[in-house]
Amino acid sequence: MSPELPLSAASLTEALAALPLVDHHVHGASRDDVDRAGLERMLTEADDVPEWMTQFDSQIGLAVRRWCAPVLDLPPHADPDAYLARRLDLGAAEVNRRLLRQAGIGHYLLETGYKGEEILGVEGMAEVSGSRIDEVVRLEQVMEQVARETRTGAEFPDRFRRALADRTAGAVGLKSIVAYRYGFHFDPRRPTDAEVAAAADRWLEETGANREPRVSDPVLLRFGLWCGVDRRLPIQLHTGYGDADVQLHRCDPLLLTDFIRAVQPHAVDLLLLHCYPYQRNAGYLAQVFPHVYFDVGLGVNYTGVRSDAVVAESLELAPFSKVLFSSDAWGPPELHYLGALLWRRGMVRALGSWVDAGEWAFEDAVRVARMIGRDNARRVYRLDEA
Amino acid sequence: MSPELPLSAASLTEALAALPLVDHHVHGASRDDVDRAGLERMLTEADDVPEWMTQFDSQIGLAVRRWCAPVLDLPPHADPDAYLARRLDLGAAEVNRRLLRQAGIGHYLLETGYKGEEILGVEGMAEVSGSRIDEVVRLEQVMEQVARETRTGAEFPDRFRRALADRTAGAVGLKSIVAYRYGFHFDPRRPTDAEVAAAADRWLEETGANREPRVSDPVLLRFGLWCGVDRRLPIQLHTGYGDADVQLHRCDPLLLTDFIRAVQPHAVDLLLLHCYPYQRNAGYLAQVFPHVYFDVGLGVNYTGVRSDAVVAESLELAPFSKVLFSSDAWGPPELHYLGALLWRRGMVRALGSWVDAGEWAFEDAVRVARMIGRDNARRVYRLDEA
Amino acid sequence: MSPELPLSAASLTEALAALPLVDHHVHGASRDDVDRAGLERMLTEADDVPEWMTQFDSQIGLAVRRWCAPVLDLPPHADPDAYLARRLDLGAAEVNRRLLRQAGIGHYLLETGYKGEEILGVEGMAEVSGSRIDEVVRLEQVMEQVARETRTGAEFPDRFRRALADRTAGAVGLKSIVAYRYGFHFDPRRPTDAEVAAAADRWLEETGANREPRVSDPVLLRFGLWCGVDRRLPIQLHTGYGDADVQLHRCDPLLLTDFIRAVQPHAVDLLLLHCYPYQRNAGYLAQVFPHVYFDVGLGVNYTGVRSDAVVAESLELAPFSKVLFSSDAWGPPELHYLGALLWRRGMVRALGSWVDAGEWAFEDAVRVARMIGRDNARRVYRLDEA
Repeated sequence: MSPELPLSAASLTEALAALPLVDHHVHGASRDDVDRAGLERMLTEADDVPEWMTQFDSQIGLAVRRWCAPVLDLPPHADPDAYLARRLDLGAAEVNRRLLRQAGIGHYLLETGYKGEEILGVEGMAEVSGSRIDEVVRLEQVMEQVARETRTGAEFPDRFRRALADRTAGAVGLKSIVAYRYGFHFDPRRPTDAEVAAAADRWLEETGANREPRVSDPVLLRFGLWCGVDRRLPIQLHTGYGDADVQLHRCDPLLLTDFIRAVQPHAVDLLLLHCYPYQRNAGYLAQVFPHVYFDVGLGVNYTGVRSDAVVAESLELAPFSKVLFSSDAWGPPELHYLGALLWRRGMVRALGSWVDAGEWAFEDAVRVARMIGRDNARRVYRLDEA
Repeated sequence: MSPELPLSAASLTEALAALPLVDHHVHGASRDDVDRAGLERMLTEADDVPEWMTQFDSQIGLAVRRWCAPVLDLPPHADPDAYLARRLDLGAAEVNRRLLRQAGIGHYLLETGYKGEEILGVEGMAEVSGSRIDEVVRLEQVMEQVARETRTGAEFPDRFRRALADRTAGAVGLKSIVAYRYGFHFDPRRPTDAEVAAAADRWLEETGANREPRVSDPVLLRFGLWCGVDRRLPIQLHTGYGDADVQLHRCDPLLLTDFIRAVQPHAVDLLLLHCYPYQRNAGYLAQVFPHVYFDVGLGVNYTGVRSDAVVAESLELAPFSKVLFSSDAWGPPELHYLGALLWRRGMVRALGSWVDAGEWAFEDAVRVARMIGRDNARRVYRLDEA
Repeated sequence: MSPELPLSAASLTEALAALPLVDHHVHGASRDDVDRAGLERMLTEADDVPEWMTQFDSQIGLAVRRWCAPVLDLPPHADPDAYLARRLDLGAAEVNRRLLRQAGIGHYLLETGYKGEEILGVEGMAEVSGSRIDEVVRLEQVMEQVARETRTGAEFPDRFRRALADRTAGAVGLKSIVAYRYGFHFDPRRPTDAEVAAAADRWLEETGANREPRVSDPVLLRFGLWCGVDRRLPIQLHTGYGDADVQLHRCDPLLLTDFIRAVQPHAVDLLLLHCYPYQRNAGYLAQVFPHVYFDVGLGVNYTGVRSDAVVAESLELAPFSKVLFSSDAWGPPELHYLGALLWRRGMVRALGSWVDAGEWAFEDAVRVARMIGRDNARRVYRLDEA
């Protein structure tokens, strides 16, 4: 990966290249071609990229030019216009095919609840990537679908439970964006059906004829989470870094401590996603609670060459059986590709340096990389049974 | 900079040495000679240095001995007493001249609102440094000046607006220390003139005959900020690390999120200063909000050799067009000099290692360093128009 | 320590190996043999280790295999079962003797308030380690002892003061776990005896015939702290990372700022223990308040090879006269041994790299290591007078 790569790092690089990852939280790749402005908008969590700047002047932008350009037959560091031209020249299908097939991801757990119309779904992703795909269902999306079909709050709890059971019949996990819609400082108790009905009444009234209901009431969000617990599927929680909608300090996973404790007797796994810049806090929770896991997905892509620091920080307090890999890619397949590449790079840099110093055995390094890159996800989501 | 400097780092060091920086937040250098106790007190954010210890036993102290001693013709690591003796021998004017002229700072944006009587002002700094100086005006200082001249709260809003317009006629930016005086958890709304008048009445009454009024009422502090927005100049906000007066956890820039959102439609730029240890939080805000910028100024000086880690952490989420350089020096010109030296050192270490690994192109590294070290400040403060 | 160790690191390693440390916060080593499940439970802050995983797959687990195995005559990276077999073979007394005697710790300040029946006390530790032992008394343990002997709240304040005086007659310091029992967001004021009596009445009533009273009332916890201030001994405060009982975000030392200010006029030293992941916040407090100190003890052990990053982060804002060494070991002597080994390793890596780069003088590096490893603790706890 770098000219002066020491022996152990080279061997680790090989071992990791040979490991088909499970990307335990990811979205579909873009269906269609995009122009430069469109691609830039998808390479940031900002709502927009102001005209006077370019998102290529960022870690993710430089990473695209460095690592994705060669996959499209361009030299490393190709300039943005050349990159966009080549991208259009190849077409979205071929760009997807190349980047997804070379990502080294053997299994995608696809979260299908965000802007699904713009991106490939389960079948499309299976076809273009050649990898196995399983689905993760977003609780809030199911709830908003139910709201469109419900007239009174009283019928809401049962309708939601039925819809969730139907929608997740083949799913391997659930996802919650309570961090976005409210924050982690919610009352951890399970709400009663009466409380839920009252909250749903308020929501349905506000929403009225709006066909795009958006759930942000904390009672309803908690209800979704507790129904998820009853559903006995692993629950992913957006944590930390995200777009301009979040109050980032409300997404510190430590604010979830009481909810985590409340879920513990139910033996349902909670997976904290991304976590940047709170990855050390997540590592603490993953050490002390048997049902807590985490990854550093989104932050890895967006910190580019600095993601080695983020990956290294994810390898502190948590037992290695509690850390997972994800890309959290949505849209440009560059994000799927870079998510895997940068995670492998970060693992090689961290573990390789420890092996070189004689502090870790090479075999342990390979084993830990396999746990985090694949095996933990297989166990948590019971992928061998699916 | 170090004996085993690789080629790209050497070339980057050269490129950065040739770049005249814009120090976008800085104060004047000390007017007069200081003795050892006096210098130690100015090399810490503590109110005082207890007798049983020396501030030379700290990162900043060792940095002064390592880097500033040679500028005063002493060997690196000169001992503190020898350093102080040489300093007195040369005299404040010559020490200022040497350290400021060798800092490689082409343009200082001087914040003149803090203990102005002890330090050089705009003219003095221009003369001794040979660099261009522009002024940044502290909102709270203007407000406290107005309080000295005002008898009733009712007249306060208009008086402040007029005074601010007068005082900033030639200024390039504004500065707020709301973080010190209250914290970032303030109500983000613009207060009405009636609310301001009532708060000013309370303040004027408390202050009474005191000729050193100190504004700490959140209504008045918010009023200052919103008048700053109306003034349409970039607003610097003290963020994070500062002296024993702050409640550091109230200075987490994430607590500003709602205020940032409220300012967004006004298209006035907000510049988060220092930010340590919240630089990653600042980077998030700078990515997702088009009008948010940040630097890691003060923390760079006070972490000495560890500032490379702080600078590297400033290069994660934020697009490079949203990061700036500052020293936040006040008093000893060692702080102006080290601020520039340590920032250049941190940039060379980070960018140089990425170039060496083949992950960044050398040209991109130089371009990014120029953006952060100079060009972003020129654009934000419209320095070419000034 | 590593094959490619540069000269200055090798010399620093030697200098640090020759330095007998003062472990300023530590507990006794286990009295008895433990089996694998027992050892695993003591190598985590979790309440238990689930059956499907092993705590050997963690940084601390790999560190035990790497560094402790050779002390027990096994090769580095010995597998866990071989390690446990050898441990039982040698027996607890010999394992203690080897690991404690090779830790290079000259003086233990033993906190005796946690599960004392399972571990060696002051005499046992002195005998097995061959080192000097002094005692640190846990405020809450004294309070709970007093509760067992008290019938009415009215007598509680005086009884506690007397018990504390008796119990600490020969102690060098105090310890508070207010972070565990309530959090640092407590009212910083000294409570009146009437307030304490009322709180004690409530507590005694709740406790009733329970012979294991557990103090968690914030009035009583504050009372303990203020009695500690009156006792004029240095007060250690558990800070940050701990077991599943803490609300970690309530243990951010910044939440102590007002209490720190309130204690300042009393000139009693406050020592923030562990602090992970808030070590930078602790460094800020240690810079700006003359009576604040900190260490990164517990986090060093549990981050294993990553502890170099934690140690390095402890060397930023704080003057070096305000940083201390501790292992916070409790139970397996592996924790005493690794605490010292990993701290030395982290210091050599950080300081060695700065010396190599020509940025620190070698003599300064050795001096700073001695301050942090030994001399600061001797001064703060007046160990030469004891």
